[in-house]
Amino acid sequence: MGLHLHNSLSRRKEEFKPLEEGRVGIYVCGPTVYGHCHLGHAKSYVSFDVLVRYLRYLGYTVSYVQNITDVGHLTDDADEGEDKIAKAAVKAHKHPMALAEIYTRSFFEDMDQLNCVRPDISPRASGHIIEQIELVKTLVEKGYAYEVNGSVYYDVAKFAEYGKLSGRNVEEMVAGARIEPSPDKRNPVDFAIWKKAEPNHIMQWPSPWGMGYPGWHLECSAMATKYLGQTIDIHGGGLENQFPHHECEIAQSEAANGVPFVRFWIHHNMVTVDGQKMGKSLNNFITLKQAFVGAHERLTRRYEPLAVRQLILNSHYRSPLDFSDAALFAANSGYQRITETVKALRKHLKTAPEGAVDSSVAEQLATFKTRFEEAMNDDLNTSVALSVLFDLVRVSNTLIGEASTTRETLAAVDEQFTRLGGDVLGIVQTEYAEEAGANDEAVGALVGLLIEQRANARKAKDFATADAVRDKLDAAGIVLEDKPDGTDWRWK
Amino acid sequence: MGLHLHNSLSRRKEEFKPLEEGRVGIYVCGPTVYGHCHLGHAKSYVSFDVLVRYLRYLGYTVSYVQNITDVGHLTDDADEGEDKIAKAAVKAHKHPMALAEIYTRSFFEDMDQLNCVRPDISPRASGHIIEQIELVKTLVEKGYAYEVNGSVYYDVAKFAEYGKLSGRNVEEMVAGARIEPSPDKRNPVDFAIWKKAEPNHIMQWPSPWGMGYPGWHLECSAMATKYLGQTIDIHGGGLENQFPHHECEIAQSEAANGVPFVRFWIHHNMVTVDGQKMGKSLNNFITLKQAFVGAHERLTRRYEPLAVRQLILNSHYRSPLDFSDAALFAANSGYQRITETVKALRKHLKTAPEGAVDSSVAEQLATFKTRFEEAMNDDLNTSVALSVLFDLVRVSNTLIGEASTTRETLAAVDEQFTRLGGDVLGIVQTEYAEEAGANDEAVGALVGLLIEQRANARKAKDFATADAVRDKLDAAGIVLEDKPDGTDWRWK
Repeated sequence: MGLHLHNSLSRRKEEFKPLEEGRVGIYVCGPTVYGHCHLGHAKSYVSFDVLVRYLRYLGYTVSYVQNITDVGHLTDDADEGEDKIAKAAVKAHKHPMALAEIYTRSFFEDMDQLNCVRPDISPRASGHIIEQIELVKTLVEKGYAYEVNGSVYYDVAKFAEYGKLSGRNVEEMVAGARIEPSPDKRNPVDFAIWKKAEPNHIMQWPSPWGMGYPGWHLECSAMATKYLGQTIDIHGGGLENQFPHHECEIAQSEAANGVPFVRFWIHHNMVTVDGQKMGKSLNNFITLKQAFVGAHERLTRRYEPLAVRQLILNSHYRSPLDFSDAALFAANSGYQRITETVKALRKHLKTAPEGAVDSSVAEQLATFKTRFEEAMNDDLNTSVALSVLFDLVRVSNTLIGEASTTRETLAAVDEQFTRLGGDVLGIVQTEYAEEAGANDEAVGALVGLLIEQRANARKAKDFATADAVRDKLDAAGIVLEDKPDGTDWRWK
Repeated sequence: MGLHLHNSLSRRKEEFKPLEEGRVGIYVCGPTVYGHCHLGHAKSYVSFDVLVRYLRYLGYTVSYVQNITDVGHLTDDADEGEDKIAKAAVKAHKHPMALAEIYTRSFFEDMDQLNCVRPDISPRASGHIIEQIELVKTLVEKGYAYEVNGSVYYDVAKFAEYGKLSGRNVEEMVAGARIEPSPDKRNPVDFAIWKKAEPNHIMQWPSPWGMGYPGWHLECSAMATKYLGQTIDIHGGGLENQFPHHECEIAQSEAANGVPFVRFWIHHNMVTVDGQKMGKSLNNFITLKQAFVGAHERLTRRYEPLAVRQLILNSHYRSPLDFSDAALFAANSGYQRITETVKALRKHLKTAPEGAVDSSVAEQLATFKTRFEEAMNDDLNTSVALSVLFDLVRVSNTLIGEASTTRETLAAVDEQFTRLGGDVLGIVQTEYAEEAGANDEAVGALVGLLIEQRANARKAKDFATADAVRDKLDAAGIVLEDKPDGTDWRWK
């Protein structure tokens, strides 16, 4: 069974095949850069990172495009309100583009911490105004859009398939009181694709309709097509963007190009914090930077970025995920368990005897690989995939404890940790902080030397010296543990 | 005496005053992102980083804009050849924007390593096509540019002041054989501001003159004006860009806006490696990433990024700088000396007795500050400014050696290191790798304990044990040094 993904368009799992053999184009809705990323962003970008990683694991050449929204996203989705970035920029007394730089950089820092592979192209909305204007021109020429007073609106009635992604019905939407009629719109469900700018609006550009700026939905249609073509394999985003954002993208792109826009629509579910929707008023709005240093009253400690990642992978991308201190704590323990095992395995590997790979271990590894791929092929069941890593942890710990385990056997286990836990899930690292390691080695040698001194002192019945060594090591944060076959040590 | 800067336009040092009191706008020509940065980039961006830092030290609110050239820079400066990024992209089998992402990221990584403060805005050329088209339109409307076959050329004869920055004379340039006549140009010195794109050119945009792309010089005029206004305080760049790049910027901006474009033109000088111009054929082309890990046959070791920074600051920005392994080695020693002193000072500070700041030290510090500012005010004489840091090193080491030195005195010295060496020169760090520090402390405690064991063994005439301790420490990379007042240790 090959990779199956739940396609929001058909509302069922479908076997994934790219349009062009061996190559996949994927577009994911990126952040609006007017603040630091929060836990919700982590769920989104970790989910799609795993999809991209798994596609590459399967041998596909993936072009991963994820936009940066630095203009056009209004505070109110219904074409009204202020530009989110311009509003925050005024508050911060900065040029909107200076503000966008700050939060774009912050975004990438956080994503690097979460071990998300950088997109191949991270196009900025403000950097593609000309492409957006061209798209608006096409839609006007083809009769799908109309200009009123310097703004251009999409004429939803002209696109019969409007609603096909979200399953909404235009008549019902109009009947429902949710959409305010606007004097400029022919139909209350019509949406702005170009907005006339007031003279004091900082971000505005010349267009055939006068000075203005693009509607938010427009950038994704324009940039996805520019970098991935008129029909793209996969488009990802949050469920909350299915309507109106993605519905509008489809209407724009398909009306302009006359071909299907997206073959697979993939939507991830929302996050809650302590069971509630995240919101500044509830004081449960936790940024990633706060989580990574533990600077939020809902958190009892700092959490490793990769522990946050592991918590996200513990649940399915299409399920809601509840962040809580307890859930993070548990994910952190799991993450530490995997990490410690991989480290121990790699350390042990250096001194293990040479020899062939144990055939029963090889068989077990093959079974693990199959289970892992079956889980991932089933719409990216990362929680089952993670459970395979824990099976690998158990096998590793047994093998490390057996003196006869060969280096090659351990290397085969390490290889599987690296491929499945590292390349695909992004939880296992290729190298663990090297420099600290060099110093650790020196500490190991020094403690070993002191343990020897202490043993000699004890042999000579010089218990005062022996105890002094133990006490001073204790003061340096090192605890000795006497065992039948010698003395071990650990950090306090 | 206030800050004086050498203005390339007047060819003399002038007192710097911004146009708007308290606020400075500075634009610096950024990299063309088609490869990793080399030592030449380091000289450029460190030089302007120190200027920005010093302006902020003086209390100015600085808007620092530095562009990213991701389109339009041709392999041949004279309007011919291929687009540098498109050419490299074809070679790498990547979309030009994917290639630009890779090297933009690499650029910022290297600049972060060199402790260059990020610009407030890093606008991309490809993200400002519309602004560039508007500028071309204005120049055509005002009669400063003409269209031929879908390309637009700047009519140099129309701009009487062409040559005022570089001191070149148009007639002489034409007479000199350097410029090939082009059938489309009215005058061989005319330059393209918009180039018609062939159908297979990947990067092209619609314009009033058909599909094409902007001339390289255009982006800086368009983006400087967009983010800093029609007249900007400072424009920086390399001497090699004075002509034609900056001369063309002036021609474009001043013709379009009718006001002076730049008040202070600041140019840094070139770098050589081992006395020769850097070039791939000479095998002396050293990227920053190579220097930071020592991966180049011209280098005997890896160099701390801040040692590279220190070497750059050792010479004046307007002087040529020769990189060599020996020069880097010397700069590295100087950097280590400052670093070790600051670390020792801060460590000592924790346990020093409380008390008032020593008045003679306070006087010395005031003198140092004056000398430092005088040097920096004299067209950023960083080499003299650095010498003040070394005076501070000498004073610090004396003070650390005296038991009566108060915590407040040491704090005053530390404050000066932080302000002058940190805030302005970017050589002294606020914090030195905290985590490794924790481990270092354990190593210190353990080695101390072993030194004690060895001393006891020697006292008991047990020289075999004493030597064994020394040998085993040596094997762990730690060398003991017996001194009259005890035993010190250091890493090998």
